[in-house]
Amino acid sequence: MKRIAIGQAGGPTAVLNTTLVGLVDNLKQDYELLFIKDGYEGLVHEKYTVGSDKILTWLKQQKDVAGAALGSGRYQMSAKDVETIILFFKKQKIDTLIFIGGNGTMEALSKIQCEAKRQKYALQVIGLPKTVDNDIYYTDHAPGFGSAAKYVAYSTRDLSNDLKAMKNFEQVRIIETMGRNAGWLAAASGYLKELDYEGPHYIALPERKLDVKHLEGVVLETIDRHGYAIIVVSEGVQWENGAQIEQGIIDGRKVLGGISQRLADYLRGKLNLMVRAEKLGMNQRCSTELVSLIDKDEAYAVGKTGAEWVQKDYSGVMVTLQRKEDKKYEVEMKPISLQDVANKGERLMPDEFIDKPEKYYAWLAPLID
Amino acid sequence: MKRIAIGQAGGPTAVLNTTLVGLVDNLKQDYELLFIKDGYEGLVHEKYTVGSDKILTWLKQQKDVAGAALGSGRYQMSAKDVETIILFFKKQKIDTLIFIGGNGTMEALSKIQCEAKRQKYALQVIGLPKTVDNDIYYTDHAPGFGSAAKYVAYSTRDLSNDLKAMKNFEQVRIIETMGRNAGWLAAASGYLKELDYEGPHYIALPERKLDVKHLEGVVLETIDRHGYAIIVVSEGVQWENGAQIEQGIIDGRKVLGGISQRLADYLRGKLNLMVRAEKLGMNQRCSTELVSLIDKDEAYAVGKTGAEWVQKDYSGVMVTLQRKEDKKYEVEMKPISLQDVANKGERLMPDEFIDKPEKYYAWLAPLID
Repeated sequence: MKRIAIGQAGGPTAVLNTTLVGLVDNLKQDYELLFIKDGYEGLVHEKYTVGSDKILTWLKQQKDVAGAALGSGRYQMSAKDVETIILFFKKQKIDTLIFIGGNGTMEALSKIQCEAKRQKYALQVIGLPKTVDNDIYYTDHAPGFGSAAKYVAYSTRDLSNDLKAMKNFEQVRIIETMGRNAGWLAAASGYLKELDYEGPHYIALPERKLDVKHLEGVVLETIDRHGYAIIVVSEGVQWENGAQIEQGIIDGRKVLGGISQRLADYLRGKLNLMVRAEKLGMNQRCSTELVSLIDKDEAYAVGKTGAEWVQKDYSGVMVTLQRKEDKKYEVEMKPISLQDVANKGERLMPDEFIDKPEKYYAWLAPLID
Repeated sequence: MKRIAIGQAGGPTAVLNTTLVGLVDNLKQDYELLFIKDGYEGLVHEKYTVGSDKILTWLKQQKDVAGAALGSGRYQMSAKDVETIILFFKKQKIDTLIFIGGNGTMEALSKIQCEAKRQKYALQVIGLPKTVDNDIYYTDHAPGFGSAAKYVAYSTRDLSNDLKAMKNFEQVRIIETMGRNAGWLAAASGYLKELDYEGPHYIALPERKLDVKHLEGVVLETIDRHGYAIIVVSEGVQWENGAQIEQGIIDGRKVLGGISQRLADYLRGKLNLMVRAEKLGMNQRCSTELVSLIDKDEAYAVGKTGAEWVQKDYSGVMVTLQRKEDKKYEVEMKPISLQDVANKGERLMPDEFIDKPEKYYAWLAPLID
């Protein structure tokens, strides 16, 4: 018998709850489950619910619901907090910890594991990945990204057709995507483009320096050819002074956002055209109606794999998705050390995908369709 | 044999091209068609394409595409322009004019009809309605609204679940919808709300005066109960000084937008909470993946009705959708005078729907599902 603490952390995805249900559905029935509320905050402040039948029934109904059924959120965890968490585990006789999260979560799990070891407390730790930014290393991709990429691709296509219809009134739209410091999501905006006149006509990625003068030229040339221009810009793109545009620092975390408005204001002033900023916003990570079915299946499978690894006594690992070498798209789940993920940091887009978008789109295709 | 000028005008919807295809599919094959580019601008400046087989084949492929296949847009039409249009019709021997558009289009068609009569030029004029704002009188609703309402309802539900997960980091989201001076779209945000804790927790409509102090209290009380608050605000809501928040006056048209940011800034300052503005943006009117199937069917049927009325020699009329009195939802198409539509102006939400949201949702249900 095991006593397992289960939690979700960080920004939700459209399939974050699917992973949770995949996990819970496949854990052995005689395990005792403690559901941690509001991410690490719940670990530190002992906020949890015991997995009664009623809770489990409710939880399984949340499979297709956006957000995080347990509560997720952000929390700056101190070294003292990590000690507190181990005390909580001792008191509650928790022997297994499973969290679904991104890079920050894998780092947190890694710290908790170290502290348990230091205190000679036996703790099995498993991380299940989720991200819309696709910035986790050692996994081909992670649940949440495919759905967000699909949202960005379809939105850009539709927004482009919409603008084309309105070009005697409005000439430029600057579409802002999520992605933090990585360009994966912004780059997905070009996935459905088939014809030269369709947007996006330019994609600004955080991996490359923004050249506003050059962009100005691209806009003018595109309008000259097609009468309108769709520019996509990742929230993480730095303005020419090297600074990212942010909404503020909240709880020690830089909340990005606003580069599209900044660019729109700039281009409007320079070109005397109607330029509108279109920030795709939180719908990118929570639109359950535009979910990618393969993403949803993989999200569930990641949870299921977590359950299997609990029984196999794997510890200190995150589930990764690895593409098989076959022509047909298929993934297998393999473990990677949590510490390796934590140490490696944010995974940016590789040059080969930035320089050869068709290569990126071929990689992306199975995650969206 | 007839020679028919066909055009699209105003902001697109996700099903504007469906109506166009419904029309073209059902017009008699021996009619000669002139497709007008870019709305009235094309009428004034003689921008058109003759309906060749190639054009017709291409056009029918645009049925599910966002935007306006012919080009739509905005154009301030002067009295002189109207005279120019009649000259163009005489030269091209146009005897029928069909435009798909909103209130502005019906007004424009009405003016063109008057001028043709004054010049004793026989012209059949038919208007086909489209709107995401649902602000056209004499029709139960018009194509485009159902899909936009669906987008708003699903987005609000998902954004609410997403915020609920993040409440230790972010407490308030102000969701801004389209709608111009009418609250139909904003009010649709509550359609999927089932439980007390789900958003929206407050909807600000342009039909009612904004009371910021009251809203502040609602936000505090909602956070007290649930830990987070989802506020929906229509772009047309006036700030307390009586002014709407606008992005500017473009070609004589007031472009609304920004009330969510203004409210977010205000509440952040007053309440010292993390408050984010979520402007749903152009996706509301162009998201083809979230289209309402009934809306799409009706859009096609409106075009088909237009084609039938051409043959019946109806003139000076707009197609309206009238609900039958049966329990089962069904509509029939009836004509209304273009001049009546033009004179009546914008259709706001009636008090009974504002005061009894459940009545509004019952009315809305068949348009979304």
